[in-house]
Amino acid sequence: MNTQPAFVAAADPAELIGAIARRARQAQAALAAMPSAARAAALHHAADALRAATPEILAANAQDLAAGKARGLSGAMLDRLALDEARIEGVAAGVDAVADLADPVGQVIEAYQRPNGLKLQRIRVPIGTIGIIYESRPNVTADAAALCVRAGNAALLRGGSEAVHSNRAIHAALVAGLAEGGVPEAAVQLIPTQDRAAVGAMLTASGLIDMIVPRGGKSLVERVQADARVPVLAHLDGICHTYVHAAAEPEMAKTIALNAKMRRTGICGAMETLLIDSAFPEAAALVAALIDRGCEVRGDERIQALDPRVIPASANDWDTEYLDAILSVACVDGLAAALAHIARHSSAHTDVIVTDDESAAERFLAEVDSAIVMHNASSQFADGGEFGLGAEIGIATGRLHARGPVALEGLTTYKWQVRGSGQTRP
Amino acid sequence: MNTQPAFVAAADPAELIGAIARRARQAQAALAAMPSAARAAALHHAADALRAATPEILAANAQDLAAGKARGLSGAMLDRLALDEARIEGVAAGVDAVADLADPVGQVIEAYQRPNGLKLQRIRVPIGTIGIIYESRPNVTADAAALCVRAGNAALLRGGSEAVHSNRAIHAALVAGLAEGGVPEAAVQLIPTQDRAAVGAMLTASGLIDMIVPRGGKSLVERVQADARVPVLAHLDGICHTYVHAAAEPEMAKTIALNAKMRRTGICGAMETLLIDSAFPEAAALVAALIDRGCEVRGDERIQALDPRVIPASANDWDTEYLDAILSVACVDGLAAALAHIARHSSAHTDVIVTDDESAAERFLAEVDSAIVMHNASSQFADGGEFGLGAEIGIATGRLHARGPVALEGLTTYKWQVRGSGQTRP
Repeated sequence: MNTQPAFVAAADPAELIGAIARRARQAQAALAAMPSAARAAALHHAADALRAATPEILAANAQDLAAGKARGLSGAMLDRLALDEARIEGVAAGVDAVADLADPVGQVIEAYQRPNGLKLQRIRVPIGTIGIIYESRPNVTADAAALCVRAGNAALLRGGSEAVHSNRAIHAALVAGLAEGGVPEAAVQLIPTQDRAAVGAMLTASGLIDMIVPRGGKSLVERVQADARVPVLAHLDGICHTYVHAAAEPEMAKTIALNAKMRRTGICGAMETLLIDSAFPEAAALVAALIDRGCEVRGDERIQALDPRVIPASANDWDTEYLDAILSVACVDGLAAALAHIARHSSAHTDVIVTDDESAAERFLAEVDSAIVMHNASSQFADGGEFGLGAEIGIATGRLHARGPVALEGLTTYKWQVRGSGQTRP
Repeated sequence: MNTQPAFVAAADPAELIGAIARRARQAQAALAAMPSAARAAALHHAADALRAATPEILAANAQDLAAGKARGLSGAMLDRLALDEARIEGVAAGVDAVADLADPVGQVIEAYQRPNGLKLQRIRVPIGTIGIIYESRPNVTADAAALCVRAGNAALLRGGSEAVHSNRAIHAALVAGLAEGGVPEAAVQLIPTQDRAAVGAMLTASGLIDMIVPRGGKSLVERVQADARVPVLAHLDGICHTYVHAAAEPEMAKTIALNAKMRRTGICGAMETLLIDSAFPEAAALVAALIDRGCEVRGDERIQALDPRVIPASANDWDTEYLDAILSVACVDGLAAALAHIARHSSAHTDVIVTDDESAAERFLAEVDSAIVMHNASSQFADGGEFGLGAEIGIATGRLHARGPVALEGLTTYKWQVRGSGQTRP
């Protein structure tokens, strides 16, 4: 099966991306016109096709792994790249789950009638063509494409060079399954070149690509945000704060802090800075519990005084996303000081207050200007699945369109439908 | 009263805009923390201050008009620039009306509870700092600022050089009135230089300015869209189509077409292309009515055959926004051909079908991928006031955040609030 277009060898990246995006635009119109149930059924076909293609996908993955080892990729990189039967089944099950999510397309956001009889409504429609730029995890090929297709969008996938064979095999199976369900092949296209200039062409393809979602490390997101003219849905940092207020229940504070930092240290919702109120009575025990669990604590002077194992924090620590068992800890004098610290250092991802004082909690939830604000819960809940969204294409810390975990609804926009009976404007 | 900051003379435009935007960010946080009723009351003070400052505003406007005449501005430009007592009262009344609009900030978009007891809700919050870049109409200074402040946003206003004295006088009155109501002065700032590089600095002030709204002619919008790294809310063209379907009621088709084209030819919702179905029986009468009303009709060959007064259309006509009493008219064979023409040539602003066939109308409303789609109504209704939104900051044809007429809700975003009782993630 050859799903690669014939223009792979096109010299100019902008021409290549333009041709791909125009095919995607046409396919997207057809996809959007399909009934929701047909799109869901096609995704179930795609999941089945992925399962059926397990041998081919594993063979392709073995090629990538061999090349990666030869190139000296790290163990962590190789692990992100590696597939086995269980992981492929997980990818297929994920596609099935997305197929079963409620479809936002066609939902009526609001409907009302004007005094002149005009009936107005805003309804959700697909965004259009979504570009996904990602690194070594080949499962993104299926995850991102499934979310796009469920909400009626075309997906242009640009994976990392280290996963090129795996991505091709997954894409081929996916597209074959979708086609069985009537989805045009061009609705999900893999960019057929690893030329870095193709990424640049995607980022500047205004009018051809409607949104870019980078999925990968900080350097990828940084490059995408710096160079893109197309709107980008992303977060750069997850510098998440937990503020233990004076009126925090000490045991709850400890449980939440340990979970927020240590459950998984490498995710964007992990706590990176702990703010302990100077009036919180159990500060020393809280710091000790974190260190006892294996966390390196870098503290200001008052935190250093609590435990000899605390390392002095430098000015940089308050703006650092460790993604590791390291935590910066500051002592703050009251809620206002905590809010000021967060306003200055938060990356607007997820910030948490632990307190039994409801009015302090409500002020924190109102005034902290982040995509997600939490009271008495672990910041590691910052996740589309945990929010009940079923899946997520990413977490956004920008201010427009969608914020926090972004799932199907964030892959839609709206249009106004106006129904009249011959009205003209006076 | 001196509301101009002291750093007017700062050499570097990026430094200037950075300093202004940082002051705005602080002021915006205070503004957002004000109760909604206090923001409304402050806007009523601002309206009163505008009325009270009528003599100063008229004197400043006289300076601008004299300078404009000396520079040889056109009559139309001078008319856009000119203020009189009635226009100032209109501006003040507009500010009062915005004050009385329902406040979107704090609205709960959705709220639900997870099986683990976490309570999630998404609530509307201000976007933050909005940059408005506009041309000769000084009323935009008050209109745009009022909308921003009502929804808790700071406004950075960059007006045209031809209106500089008028804008300063309006801004001074506005800020003085707002301050009486407790709004920090830095929440509404006029960029204190006409240096064009300041506009460039606004357009690239990512992280400092959250959204840019250009208000003006096509060349302004084009420049803003080309150079901006900050998200832009705008429309470039309003190439609005009206499709007269075979089953259109002839009298309704004529009434709507005449209104859509001729009520006001210079607005973005004016019809620029009329598509007449080849099966519509009254095509000749429709074309004749438009020409009789003084509209120049540029038609394809079949339209030319209907009336000797029709001028041959060139290929460019189908992509031209005339903003004048000129109309391109094509004959199309059925709904699918009309949809194809619109998909190719529409600027995604407003497109209309006239028909008594409900299923044709529904297909049109579903498949035309524009910000506004209408059935049996004039495209000149494409307006925030006509949509019942009270006012509009602009009409957007982009695909993300907000589409069509954008009013207060489009000046908000949302955040997630999560309320727990000590939950940690398993």
